[in-house]
Amino acid sequence: MALVAVVMGSKSDLPVARRCTETLERLSVGFELRIMSAHRTPSFVMEYALSVREKGIDVIVAIAGKAAHLAGVIAACTCLPVIGLPVKSSTLDGLDSLLSTVQMPKGVPVATVAIDGAENAALLAARILSIKYPQVRERLESYIRQMREEVLNSDEELRSNTEGGI
Amino acid sequence: MALVAVVMGSKSDLPVARRCTETLERLSVGFELRIMSAHRTPSFVMEYALSVREKGIDVIVAIAGKAAHLAGVIAACTCLPVIGLPVKSSTLDGLDSLLSTVQMPKGVPVATVAIDGAENAALLAARILSIKYPQVRERLESYIRQMREEVLNSDEELRSNTEGGI
Amino acid sequence: MALVAVVMGSKSDLPVARRCTETLERLSVGFELRIMSAHRTPSFVMEYALSVREKGIDVIVAIAGKAAHLAGVIAACTCLPVIGLPVKSSTLDGLDSLLSTVQMPKGVPVATVAIDGAENAALLAARILSIKYPQVRERLESYIRQMREEVLNSDEELRSNTEGGI
Amino acid sequence: MALVAVVMGSKSDLPVARRCTETLERLSVGFELRIMSAHRTPSFVMEYALSVREKGIDVIVAIAGKAAHLAGVIAACTCLPVIGLPVKSSTLDGLDSLLSTVQMPKGVPVATVAIDGAENAALLAARILSIKYPQVRERLESYIRQMREEVLNSDEELRSNTEGGI
Amino acid sequence: MALVAVVMGSKSDLPVARRCTETLERLSVGFELRIMSAHRTPSFVMEYALSVREKGIDVIVAIAGKAAHLAGVIAACTCLPVIGLPVKSSTLDGLDSLLSTVQMPKGVPVATVAIDGAENAALLAARILSIKYPQVRERLESYIRQMREEVLNSDEELRSNTEGGI
Amino acid sequence: MALVAVVMGSKSDLPVARRCTETLERLSVGFELRIMSAHRTPSFVMEYALSVREKGIDVIVAIAGKAAHLAGVIAACTCLPVIGLPVKSSTLDGLDSLLSTVQMPKGVPVATVAIDGAENAALLAARILSIKYPQVRERLESYIRQMREEVLNSDEELRSNTEGGI
Amino acid sequence: MALVAVVMGSKSDLPVARRCTETLERLSVGFELRIMSAHRTPSFVMEYALSVREKGIDVIVAIAGKAAHLAGVIAACTCLPVIGLPVKSSTLDGLDSLLSTVQMPKGVPVATVAIDGAENAALLAARILSIKYPQVRERLESYIRQMREEVLNSDEELRSNTEGGI
Amino acid sequence: MALVAVVMGSKSDLPVARRCTETLERLSVGFELRIMSAHRTPSFVMEYALSVREKGIDVIVAIAGKAAHLAGVIAACTCLPVIGLPVKSSTLDGLDSLLSTVQMPKGVPVATVAIDGAENAALLAARILSIKYPQVRERLESYIRQMREEVLNSDEELRSNTEGGI
Repeated sequence: MALVAVVMGSKSDLPVARRCTETLERLSVGFELRIMSAHRTPSFVMEYALSVREKGIDVIVAIAGKAAHLAGVIAACTCLPVIGLPVKSSTLDGLDSLLSTVQMPKGVPVATVAIDGAENAALLAARILSIKYPQVRERLESYIRQMREEVLNSDEELRSNTEGGI
Repeated sequence: MALVAVVMGSKSDLPVARRCTETLERLSVGFELRIMSAHRTPSFVMEYALSVREKGIDVIVAIAGKAAHLAGVIAACTCLPVIGLPVKSSTLDGLDSLLSTVQMPKGVPVATVAIDGAENAALLAARILSIKYPQVRERLESYIRQMREEVLNSDEELRSNTEGGI
Repeated sequence: MALVAVVMGSKSDLPVARRCTETLERLSVGFELRIMSAHRTPSFVMEYALSVREKGIDVIVAIAGKAAHLAGVIAACTCLPVIGLPVKSSTLDGLDSLLSTVQMPKGVPVATVAIDGAENAALLAARILSIKYPQVRERLESYIRQMREEVLNSDEELRSNTEGGI
Repeated sequence: MALVAVVMGSKSDLPVARRCTETLERLSVGFELRIMSAHRTPSFVMEYALSVREKGIDVIVAIAGKAAHLAGVIAACTCLPVIGLPVKSSTLDGLDSLLSTVQMPKGVPVATVAIDGAENAALLAARILSIKYPQVRERLESYIRQMREEVLNSDEELRSNTEGGI
Repeated sequence: MALVAVVMGSKSDLPVARRCTETLERLSVGFELRIMSAHRTPSFVMEYALSVREKGIDVIVAIAGKAAHLAGVIAACTCLPVIGLPVKSSTLDGLDSLLSTVQMPKGVPVATVAIDGAENAALLAARILSIKYPQVRERLESYIRQMREEVLNSDEELRSNTEGGI
Repeated sequence: MALVAVVMGSKSDLPVARRCTETLERLSVGFELRIMSAHRTPSFVMEYALSVREKGIDVIVAIAGKAAHLAGVIAACTCLPVIGLPVKSSTLDGLDSLLSTVQMPKGVPVATVAIDGAENAALLAARILSIKYPQVRERLESYIRQMREEVLNSDEELRSNTEGGI
Repeated sequence: MALVAVVMGSKSDLPVARRCTETLERLSVGFELRIMSAHRTPSFVMEYALSVREKGIDVIVAIAGKAAHLAGVIAACTCLPVIGLPVKSSTLDGLDSLLSTVQMPKGVPVATVAIDGAENAALLAARILSIKYPQVRERLESYIRQMREEVLNSDEELRSNTEGGI
Repeated sequence: MALVAVVMGSKSDLPVARRCTETLERLSVGFELRIMSAHRTPSFVMEYALSVREKGIDVIVAIAGKAAHLAGVIAACTCLPVIGLPVKSSTLDGLDSLLSTVQMPKGVPVATVAIDGAENAALLAARILSIKYPQVRERLESYIRQMREEVLNSDEELRSNTEGGI
């Protein structure tokens, strides 16, 4: 069953969206992946946002660039937690997407992650789900342990390599 | 008859909105002044945007701050020209409002003016109307002449004052 | 019972923190309010972050300014969802706090809200809790209805005032 | 007949200008395409701006980069609506062009679109013309419908692909 | 005789302009002080710029804020050296004025000084004049000596005060 | 004996400099306080930088605003560690000072602290001295303990106040 | 005879410097081309700056990147006009160089041109020389005429191409 | 013996770290090179920071990108001098790393160098060590002399090439 809706504003955001869904898959969190645009299909976005809870979705990840309104418009139409993933486009190095996503006015929050931070959007969705689903928490903890091991191993390897080198 | 809809995202934008409507009044351009929020009243904004042309409105001015989505959401629901007036709030000196308003993705343009540029939003609305209503054009030209006279008079006065001063 | 931990990096953040806790109170969400610094009391922050889930806390709001590391350090020590609330200090208009909070590297997400967006931090905490506690969801929906009413009322009042004005 | 003047500050802006005129062609809006520089041919720009209305032009699109003064200088010499299209050059990622175009002082507005937003400049010109020419409005509405269909189709396709994928 | 033209875009720039002319007076450099706007009186600016050399002016200082085009437009109409003095207005902390003044495209340079750097605009004008007028050079060297003395005296005073203090 | 030279570029930096020297006094680290300007007294700065080691100085703190060159120029003339303390002036919110201080080209480093971070400049000087003088290390450790106590006490107090409050 | 000194901070600035000297050559303005670093050879820069007028130099162009102090340090040691040419390096897109060059404190101005604006640095040098040397003025005016012709020709060509195209 | 610990937040920082250690090698300063992450291995970082002085380390260089907390977290756990080396990642051109590293709150300083300024981080470490180890000072002075020679040689070569060129 899909617990997370991953929604992107344009087909061109698909590579970023895939990095997000791959992380969800790694954590065995069900999701649905959709394309809809706050500006090109506004009423469709609104309908989707109003109906998404009934499908069993608990968290929405909204991916958009430039004047990135998708996360904000969805958050305006549901009280589910909405994660905003700003993407970098060809000008301004992602600053426009970031500010359009995070600087939401009082009353309607968007949980914003780093520009192009697709894995972190998935991990934040999982952290939110973990307060309700103990199995997600376990998988997250295992993910974190693994991540820690990788860093410690890199350190270990490097030390072996530099052994005696100085 | 109202030809321009001046729409603000929050009651706190009223002082900026008033500077806009005063300029419209000076040009004898009818307007209606409304408060509606892309985030707190999304479906109301959408309905309004869809119905506004029928009322005889030709141009919409949308005023908003922070992650300013109002102009973009309205522009997504009508093909009338939409002028975005970004307002400065307490952080980031207006940069967030500006980028959220102007950096619209391909397909849905917002005609953006300077941060807090309320008079210019009104003057841009009048310029747009002037292609259809010759009397607006005349008033605009007279406004521009007057503006020019004011600058020339300031220059004249200053020169009188500095006469012999050097 | 406290479901939310509101943690600030410095006593000077108290006014911002109070705006956050007042919103939680309005939603009848229990919280605990704490001061601890990622830089001045690092081991205390780490112990706190490791122990906070056992107390029944589901969400943490971390408030900090400048090179705001508090949210990131806490998120590194727990897999609970951590909300980062960047605060504006005397230089750079909050940009430093925002980037230090939101631009987290891959693996450890922080759910960032707007600079000084204390109410939104509380509302985001409530949205997260709402996936687990139906009563929080009801209160949130009522809050959103009320917010919508306020905007519609402002619009109504303004229209009464401008009636016949043009 | 040309209703839109598309004016670029330098021959190097031609690729951006072409994206603008292709969109105008798609909407069957007549245009003329010109090169003139606010800095290298100032009196020519002024003469052109003063005479352009007589040719039947209703809207001007001005394309320039860096300290982009072209749109502002044209707007100073006509009361037609002027659309500013800032282009990104090799430094500062377009921020200089954007601010030089949008931050016009009180009295002379420029309708600014996104950095490199050539299609949107054309669409904004068409929105402006649509208040006077019903046939432009119809073509714009058809364009918007088509754009919506494309997004909905992308969504449909993606859903087919992910069917059973989770 | 006036060797320097100090031109401001708006009466509101007068306090900044005065700081500039006071420095010119201190160096006994003749000037004329004028108000003219690139946007509100474009043809007047152009005429002025074309005629200014005949009056004996050698250097022009142009003062403007926001999308500050004054210096660029003047530089486009004369080959005298033009100094651009960007002024800070109520938004963006002067960054818009600075970029609009300094980022001139290839072919037409503006000698830009710091935001609100009125004294430095005057001193730069004097440095330029000094290559032609030896007496200006002498006054500049004396000014620089005096400036050096002031710093050395401040240092001396401070040292007296802290004597024994540590 | 003075181990630290605290050098400011202008008398107007004295309040910031005092916050630095007060912290040094609290750590019983001797210092000398000087005014000299990279731009107004360049040869004096160079001489000072070349001679400062002979006086027994181990660390230099250089305080300057805007295009803050003081730290860089001193670092170019000595191989002692130089701490750059950028100060905020009336425009650009300190960003100019920060970048002018920290972005030193390859070969000549400046140890930069936060904008207006006077206490941290002193504490960094003490950390550097601590590798050579054990007594400085002890005082620093005591300072850090005290700082930690203050945070813990604030937390304790706050907890007392909120007791029963939720 | 060399009237202009073109000084770069590092050998890696040579391509930018060449674009500057080519423009000087085109205007038949003599120059000398030098490498010296404010940070790696400070006393050499100071000596050079103090002696340069005696050689007959009237204007100095200083080219540097990152925390670009070269122009400021030279301007501190001579009262000749100094043109600062900020160059873009691998981070921050030239903003650091620009601010380090232009934001000079009161007393010591640097005539700053656009980031990487090598031709404009040369043209500004020529404009300054033109107040003293009539032949430089003539060459500048011819350069400007030629530049104007090029733009008008581009426009003419483009018009031929689009003839009948709409 | 290792006097400097060079610590990077991620294996991907290795190329930057190598440029740092090569400079240390050139100065014959012993170092150890480690990988550890403030976010993925927080307790390991803390233990390391607490134990590093005992190993004989005098200075720590911490290398990290994005919301770069590594230097700050280490500085919070030791009173050794900590050098922060911000690295540029794929968005925001290094501004996020720089601000997260340098804008440390009062009490815990990080000695920050330029974005990607790996050589300067090493040279700053050497400057700090030089106050304790005279031999490091000698090597630094020789390094500086060599650097000066290189610039002077570049200048000499260039002059030979341009001889008679004008």
